[in-house]
Amino acid sequence: MRNFSSDVRKRNRTSLLRHLHLQGPTTRTALSEALDLNRSTIKSLVDELTEEGLVDESATSGSRGAGRPSLLVVPGTRSTTVLAIDIRINSVSTAVVGLGGEVLVEQRWALPPHERSPAEVCARIARRAAQALSEADHRVRAVGISVPGVVRRTDSVVRDAPNLGWNDVPLREHVSEALGLPVEIGNDAELGALAEGARGVGRTDSDVAYVYADVGVGGGVVSRGTSVFGPRNHVGEFGHMVVRHDGRACYCGCEGCWETEIGRAALTRALGVPEDLDDGVLVRRLRALAADPVSGRAALREPARWLALGLCNLVNVLGAELLVLGGLLAELPPSVVAGVEEAVRTRSIVSKATAGARVVRSPLGTRATLIGAAELAFERTLSSR
Amino acid sequence: MRNFSSDVRKRNRTSLLRHLHLQGPTTRTALSEALDLNRSTIKSLVDELTEEGLVDESATSGSRGAGRPSLLVVPGTRSTTVLAIDIRINSVSTAVVGLGGEVLVEQRWALPPHERSPAEVCARIARRAAQALSEADHRVRAVGISVPGVVRRTDSVVRDAPNLGWNDVPLREHVSEALGLPVEIGNDAELGALAEGARGVGRTDSDVAYVYADVGVGGGVVSRGTSVFGPRNHVGEFGHMVVRHDGRACYCGCEGCWETEIGRAALTRALGVPEDLDDGVLVRRLRALAADPVSGRAALREPARWLALGLCNLVNVLGAELLVLGGLLAELPPSVVAGVEEAVRTRSIVSKATAGARVVRSPLGTRATLIGAAELAFERTLSSR
Repeated sequence: MRNFSSDVRKRNRTSLLRHLHLQGPTTRTALSEALDLNRSTIKSLVDELTEEGLVDESATSGSRGAGRPSLLVVPGTRSTTVLAIDIRINSVSTAVVGLGGEVLVEQRWALPPHERSPAEVCARIARRAAQALSEADHRVRAVGISVPGVVRRTDSVVRDAPNLGWNDVPLREHVSEALGLPVEIGNDAELGALAEGARGVGRTDSDVAYVYADVGVGGGVVSRGTSVFGPRNHVGEFGHMVVRHDGRACYCGCEGCWETEIGRAALTRALGVPEDLDDGVLVRRLRALAADPVSGRAALREPARWLALGLCNLVNVLGAELLVLGGLLAELPPSVVAGVEEAVRTRSIVSKATAGARVVRSPLGTRATLIGAAELAFERTLSSR
Repeated sequence: MRNFSSDVRKRNRTSLLRHLHLQGPTTRTALSEALDLNRSTIKSLVDELTEEGLVDESATSGSRGAGRPSLLVVPGTRSTTVLAIDIRINSVSTAVVGLGGEVLVEQRWALPPHERSPAEVCARIARRAAQALSEADHRVRAVGISVPGVVRRTDSVVRDAPNLGWNDVPLREHVSEALGLPVEIGNDAELGALAEGARGVGRTDSDVAYVYADVGVGGGVVSRGTSVFGPRNHVGEFGHMVVRHDGRACYCGCEGCWETEIGRAALTRALGVPEDLDDGVLVRRLRALAADPVSGRAALREPARWLALGLCNLVNVLGAELLVLGGLLAELPPSVVAGVEEAVRTRSIVSKATAGARVVRSPLGTRATLIGAAELAFERTLSSR
């Protein structure tokens, strides 16, 4: 029976660390309830983790009654950290993130078109990351990378990142070799969904379908705090769901993909501004529409229509109930989002048969992918501790 | 540690029974390998199950070498049976199915429009089932029911079965009370997918997206032999994905749902036959098209176009790679299916980035839902034994 019990103990350790990582400081009593483990098991696990420096215990500020003050178990932020890397079309961000989710160091650099080759991006990531790691007074356990493309889960090869011009790039190998750390790679929209589940809207609601729009459009589903990947471990591509069979041509070969109808180009078209408008200016233009709900809805009528149709399809296909809008969609005026929600509720047969779908804007905004990359690395790190 | 080890033993029992149920008679050696359990554990489990009459052991026909003949562990078909009920729009089928999947008794009756009220259907099911159970020389452990509608997984209430005119029907309560057995309810297309995973195409391929067309269109995803349900345990409704925003009006309130473009009505329209043509005749008409591939493709051009577009969307949204066509779609001529497969492969960005999607016709045909209802009941029964 030795193996069974040590497996059980390891699973309990992982659950405890994951709980502290996601929920923050927690009393032993609350841990015992949340994990459904008896108090002596919790005590022995906490003692062990304290000895290893992974958690600390401290008195609660507001201990009630006359008894002993209840001790809070606190994740040791610097005891376990990961390096998150967010590769976008125009820039790369990196962050060192501690257990519990605190961002300890963050940097970002532009990615001009002539520096987007896999070799150059990998070399630069390696240089910057090595520098960040050498300066750090914390132990980095793993690396998580977000990529705007299709990633094969089995070996983390980037099969196709069209907006970067990448095909079959063994990114994990390159980065892992350069840094000597385990590396996990994920699709940007999928990681945005993971971030929403761990740190955003999904913290209070266990199931989230997330749609992210920038130049590309993607998404993911998080069920009970964990990413749901498609069969065969390939990540789906929400952005290439055809919503308008007679719509604009997409680089993928179809017409009227969600990406062509609600992505950055569709939004600039609707606003009547140049397609290459600066990101900051575009966001300000979208936000300004909130001041005048009527003209805001009028200006965004077309993208809003296709956004609603696609969300309706996701509700009907996936049974999703909470739909989170990320990236540029998180900047849509509240009146437009309310109109989209109304359309999804009244038109989706699944929504009509249930409590009704909700459409909300992501509170994480454009940082969701970086946060998701960190969570991907933590998923691996915490389960192997 | 007592609880842990008895839990582990129970899990191992379930795994062993499930393995025999799905794979059929297996030697102890093969069981040991398949379940990754040592031989003494397998022996002790098999001895226990033999004593309880759930399995038998018999000599293999072709034992090799000079040693003792290897013993085959055989599921006791009649030791554990379930009652499967398939409620369709025009008929109801029931079957008593034994461990291992053998159908022991089967019956079917027509469901004319004036007899489709929940009360009448429930009463008739109860009468017929009670009769079948009283005649049976086997122990029925659970009931699985397939319904053409949206089922809430948490309490098995049939929220909406539009083609039957049912709303919020507590079917499980009714049937469970009448028969005194545990009852599980599932959506027909979802159960078709489950059947494909357990007994059809999915036996050799672990992940299946299944699309079923009759009057309604639905589907489901099976990953590694188990149904994947949407967030919040609601089953998705593939049939109400909008594939043609300017298409025909659907009763759900949308236009151009997959159901209106590839369902029974769309097929009769394409063939130029009356919408209420007898099922058998319609199937023969579809099969006859196989004789002349060119005119077959021409006649079914429209439904084939929307079938391909919808499958493409499923591949892109779900990451599915094996697409199984069930119900009337299983009767499409091979040349039409080949054309649809070609379109999905060349147009889906996910398919292009992977090994390529496959589109196949279901080998289970219209019996998939009945088989799926049995498997749903076995899922419950085997995990509680």
